[in-house]
Amino acid sequence: MFQDALKDAQARVQAALDTAMQPLDGTIAEAMRYTCNGGKRLRAFLVMEGARLHDVDPALADPTAAVIEMIHAYSLVHDDLPCMDNDDLRRGLPTVHIQWDEAIAVLTGDALQTLAFEVLAGLDTDADTRVTLVSSLAKASGAQGMVLGQALDIEAESADRPLTLPEITRLQAGKTGALIEWSGTAGAYLAKADPAPLRQYAQALGLAFQIADDILDIEGDAAKMGKAVHKDAEAGKATFVTLLGMDGAKSRARELVGQANDALSPYGARADNLRQAARFVIDRDT
Amino acid sequence: MFQDALKDAQARVQAALDTAMQPLDGTIAEAMRYTCNGGKRLRAFLVMEGARLHDVDPALADPTAAVIEMIHAYSLVHDDLPCMDNDDLRRGLPTVHIQWDEAIAVLTGDALQTLAFEVLAGLDTDADTRVTLVSSLAKASGAQGMVLGQALDIEAESADRPLTLPEITRLQAGKTGALIEWSGTAGAYLAKADPAPLRQYAQALGLAFQIADDILDIEGDAAKMGKAVHKDAEAGKATFVTLLGMDGAKSRARELVGQANDALSPYGARADNLRQAARFVIDRDT
Repeated sequence: MFQDALKDAQARVQAALDTAMQPLDGTIAEAMRYTCNGGKRLRAFLVMEGARLHDVDPALADPTAAVIEMIHAYSLVHDDLPCMDNDDLRRGLPTVHIQWDEAIAVLTGDALQTLAFEVLAGLDTDADTRVTLVSSLAKASGAQGMVLGQALDIEAESADRPLTLPEITRLQAGKTGALIEWSGTAGAYLAKADPAPLRQYAQALGLAFQIADDILDIEGDAAKMGKAVHKDAEAGKATFVTLLGMDGAKSRARELVGQANDALSPYGARADNLRQAARFVIDRDT
Repeated sequence: MFQDALKDAQARVQAALDTAMQPLDGTIAEAMRYTCNGGKRLRAFLVMEGARLHDVDPALADPTAAVIEMIHAYSLVHDDLPCMDNDDLRRGLPTVHIQWDEAIAVLTGDALQTLAFEVLAGLDTDADTRVTLVSSLAKASGAQGMVLGQALDIEAESADRPLTLPEITRLQAGKTGALIEWSGTAGAYLAKADPAPLRQYAQALGLAFQIADDILDIEGDAAKMGKAVHKDAEAGKATFVTLLGMDGAKSRARELVGQANDALSPYGARADNLRQAARFVIDRDT
């Protein structure tokens, strides 16, 4: 069942993160461990399930899952900075620049990104596969992927009009979509299998995830979520909810979950965990 | 001659940087190009000379040289931030957070780091070599290399006593030494040759470089250097000059240049450019 698989993924990815960071000491290492602790681990789960569908050894899937959580954590630490989203709370704990200071937060994010590529390059598999993973993760997280999405998000704040639906879709595809897509396909890359079905699944899932986030920003409970809510609404930002209406956003999210599940048909019942994950993404309350 | 080879390296690495950033557009891409423009290009030169000594095709050496300049530029953009060194001027131009803003500076550094790994992973050589380069660059620039050095530098500012010589040597080995060492050895990696002689050369060169920087912080001319001087002295920080005295620092730098040159003996006269580079590093006025 999905909830058991998610719990299993959470424990496994934490162990892989601990292993990867074990040789490090000092303040930055402490802050890296702090910020890689907790979270839903949805991206790690996607890596592990995609790997399981292709019979990839968990000894290979787990550090790969740790890598995407490092990239995700690096982006959160930098995104929480005063000059970016200025968030004091993350996963119910003070953000890194509050717990330490801004300089430590900048360096912690930097070092997490570096460690992600170091771990990928050191995976116990053939060099071609490692190079494919490094290339694809760099594309997903860099100036044409996640960082582009973050920059579009910042620019939207000072724009003289709210974003349109195509614009916000492009922003999302970078900001959250690119890493979710990579997470979904990494298992296929590890197995040298065709990543197309998992890519289709993860693209639909990523968009549904962002729509659900926008819904949670309106309907969510700050205490449960461990972070501030109503931030977008108060900032007057365009979101999928302002653009589609609440009912429209919910119906679009359900439609995307349907698409995500359809994309898994080549895998049959073995992909049921991923189907339940798609449902979870739009039903979650945190 | 060294000056010609350095000029050649400057032109070649700029072309390689332009090629690597050509597909990017938007504000972050603009800031990436801005910050990758100019500078001495010492690291690029070291990559290219090391490659030339091993008869590596410039088509392979040039993008590798661009990669180290991207990592160097990313570290400068983040290091210049108000929460770090708070510098307004770099290479005679406003720093990225002055020209744009802090959020753009954070994202620009992030994206430059990512692009560096993307370019390495995409080099036109066998996957084993690419993986070796990614691994070694990640080690050199991450939480056990450059970022560690930067963190030690920050911690030294709030320490209750000045650093000792071993401590400042360790700090330097991370903050500037690790990237210079990687630059020196990358050509050997590209050729699958023994990197030991070039590593010895680059380690001595890196330390001499930092000692010369500390000397320039006292004796340098801000207008020529395009950045602030006397910063360390005014902050009461320990430097190689405060620890060894001005004469001691200069004599140690000369000694290191001798060691660097000795390490090049396996290459004979073909390494004369690198020998002159070592001399340049301690004789430069910027």
